[in-house]
Amino acid sequence: MQERNRILRVATENLLKKNDIKKVIVLLDKLHPADAAEIVSSLSEENQKRIFESWDVPHAADTLQEMDESEQVDIVELLSTPLVADIIEDMAADDVADLLGGLSKRDQERILTAMERKDAVEAMKLMAHKADTAGGLMTPEFIALTKGMAAQDSIELLRKKAPTAETIYYVFVVNKDNQLIGVMSLRDLIIAKPTERIENIMNPNVIFVDVNTDQEEVASVMSRYDLLALPVVDQEHHLLGIITIDDVVDVIEEEASEDIYRLGGVPREERLDIPISLSIRYRLPWMVFNLATAFLAAGVVSLFEKSIAKVVILAVFMPIVAGMGGNMGTQALTVVTRGIALGQLEFKKGLRVIAREIGIGSAIGFVTGVITAIIAYFIGANPYLGLVLFLAMIINLGIAGFSGAGIPIILRLLNQDPALGSGVIVTTFTDVFGFLSFLGLATLLIKLLI
Amino acid sequence: MQERNRILRVATENLLKKNDIKKVIVLLDKLHPADAAEIVSSLSEENQKRIFESWDVPHAADTLQEMDESEQVDIVELLSTPLVADIIEDMAADDVADLLGGLSKRDQERILTAMERKDAVEAMKLMAHKADTAGGLMTPEFIALTKGMAAQDSIELLRKKAPTAETIYYVFVVNKDNQLIGVMSLRDLIIAKPTERIENIMNPNVIFVDVNTDQEEVASVMSRYDLLALPVVDQEHHLLGIITIDDVVDVIEEEASEDIYRLGGVPREERLDIPISLSIRYRLPWMVFNLATAFLAAGVVSLFEKSIAKVVILAVFMPIVAGMGGNMGTQALTVVTRGIALGQLEFKKGLRVIAREIGIGSAIGFVTGVITAIIAYFIGANPYLGLVLFLAMIINLGIAGFSGAGIPIILRLLNQDPALGSGVIVTTFTDVFGFLSFLGLATLLIKLLI
Repeated sequence: MQERNRILRVATENLLKKNDIKKVIVLLDKLHPADAAEIVSSLSEENQKRIFESWDVPHAADTLQEMDESEQVDIVELLSTPLVADIIEDMAADDVADLLGGLSKRDQERILTAMERKDAVEAMKLMAHKADTAGGLMTPEFIALTKGMAAQDSIELLRKKAPTAETIYYVFVVNKDNQLIGVMSLRDLIIAKPTERIENIMNPNVIFVDVNTDQEEVASVMSRYDLLALPVVDQEHHLLGIITIDDVVDVIEEEASEDIYRLGGVPREERLDIPISLSIRYRLPWMVFNLATAFLAAGVVSLFEKSIAKVVILAVFMPIVAGMGGNMGTQALTVVTRGIALGQLEFKKGLRVIAREIGIGSAIGFVTGVITAIIAYFIGANPYLGLVLFLAMIINLGIAGFSGAGIPIILRLLNQDPALGSGVIVTTFTDVFGFLSFLGLATLLIKLLI
Repeated sequence: MQERNRILRVATENLLKKNDIKKVIVLLDKLHPADAAEIVSSLSEENQKRIFESWDVPHAADTLQEMDESEQVDIVELLSTPLVADIIEDMAADDVADLLGGLSKRDQERILTAMERKDAVEAMKLMAHKADTAGGLMTPEFIALTKGMAAQDSIELLRKKAPTAETIYYVFVVNKDNQLIGVMSLRDLIIAKPTERIENIMNPNVIFVDVNTDQEEVASVMSRYDLLALPVVDQEHHLLGIITIDDVVDVIEEEASEDIYRLGGVPREERLDIPISLSIRYRLPWMVFNLATAFLAAGVVSLFEKSIAKVVILAVFMPIVAGMGGNMGTQALTVVTRGIALGQLEFKKGLRVIAREIGIGSAIGFVTGVITAIIAYFIGANPYLGLVLFLAMIINLGIAGFSGAGIPIILRLLNQDPALGSGVIVTTFTDVFGFLSFLGLATLLIKLLI
């Protein structure tokens, strides 16, 4: 929380202690709804209830709209059904659908029943789309002009309708069957001659997405073409809604968090502010899976117990080979996964990228292998151990490059998220092959090492 | 590259083989500049030169503007100075500054000298700001209204000036000293009564940033308040420029990539499409540093050579304790680093977060420790080895939580990037303490283990 909001929060709490709800509301109404939302979210449930019950509906709706979905759900559960219905009717349709989607079936029903029929039907239509598709992001509150209108009449129409439409920075043009045929910016409209016809001003090369498009693709289209709003159509090219850039900014941050979490092996539900018991429950299955892979690596070591018994120093150098492989594999994995996420990696180049990472890995294995062998020699190890370290390092770092690049590419070909679980698979590879190459070579040359 | 662009690229290459530059240009002019840029970037240098030399300046400028900075630099180096100056004068001022910033001092000078004086001065002013600050992102091409104007006159002014200003979706209002005093959207303006004065329509609570604000902060303000444009002021509150949302979308993706790369231990310059020799050179120093930390962990193991010689199975279980610590540390690191990046983590809560992760680590260490001990027992290991494994697991996973949460928080307190190098420091911690706790406990109980 920023310093200013922290001060305002203390002021709010003092007013609440004095039961001066009116002054609290005057204070909150002066703030940007995003700030009001942050302050209200930090208050006790009882105080949240008192504020929302005395608030005027438009301000309450603006503030609720700015909260996280989980905070919205908490507040909705505090309030009476008619009050929730009133507030929700004042929110943007796409936000309503997201909020209702987070509630239990029973809560959804009681609120939808209390809402005006038209708003309820609209919300239900939007809820039918998956949250992470274009349909789940779009709002049906937009203004479409029909192609025969004149510029001046269009501006008049916008003047009348604008207050209810989420955005009018782009104006979309449809034919009489409501099929999308063009786009223009509000700027094009106001700089046009007043009598000019819309069809002569509009750009017919309008960029759009299908209602089932994945949100990652939506974000990439809007970012590629620098769009503020993107129209969404069904299979017959009917205009269903628009997606605005502010929702896409959230999507980009969400997708980046998802990738970072997946690479770090963290479940997506994890957050710093959830109870510790929940964090343990979320992370435990993953750590048990990690344990299974760790036993796999240990199993490889156990194959060479006899060699280690003869040459104990092998146990000292063993973690170096495996650890360097893990680092190299993580580097390759990071570069390739990010390349896939940003669309820099074409499918056909997959094999070339894998070959590239094998090359980088072997080259780095060569250099660090030489360094390791020299250090081993100077701390008094058998010179042949240096040779084994050198060779194992080249092999394992080459394999690290192969698995770090290959695993996300294969997951992608199988239509899975390339970041999902890749980290642990790669380090299992580098552990297993690190121990196998180092201890295996040592066993082959065991007579020279004793 | 998308399928459609791949087909268009082949068509372009065929036309170039027939030397039909005119048709190539007709084809490119029909595309969105982002698509034209992708196709042109994929052609040979010779063909790029031919196209740009025959292109009309506005289309060439639109296309160049959509390219990556490195692609822009490559093209600029192909063309004659007067042509480059012409094209650049047609680009948005902030893009010009970014492009020139990527050139050598000599190239900058020859191009600036060839540009019109006014444009050159403007570009130099912008280049004086650091690229990753508000000043580096802003464009000076905006329209500011003065407070006394009427709505109708303002629209007239916009009609005249709009074609040269980068965005007019928000209109900023200044006083006679050019100090920022308000904001309104184009939408507010066109729905206002024509005779209404600007000062009565505008919102005086305008959100702005100082010219030296870091780009991460700029992105967070724009995303928090859902802004399409953000005004930039100097210390005396003079309006210097505006930042548009499309530039911020790029910043968000850039910052996410940076965090992902840092967590993965990948140098920021690394990309899939650079020469392999360059990749090796970028990654090698980091891997040599990793090698040093690996030797540190190996040094710990060497302290216990005698114990391993007596009980060889220690070498088998050793990687399990260290590896599980590494996984747990990476999870904690990922959650805390992302929390810091998204502003979810307040400074004062730092200690609580560290305690939280120690708790999660120990709890998961308890469960996986029990599982490990049971498995060890069933594969015939000494029961006391199970006890050692169990205790070492709790200790090391607790330490993993401590270092995974503590290291980024400490880096942040030192004003360093919390993701920078954290990964390797955390795994060094978990390796060292993993070996130390497991082999140390085993050495204490060595008589029971033989």
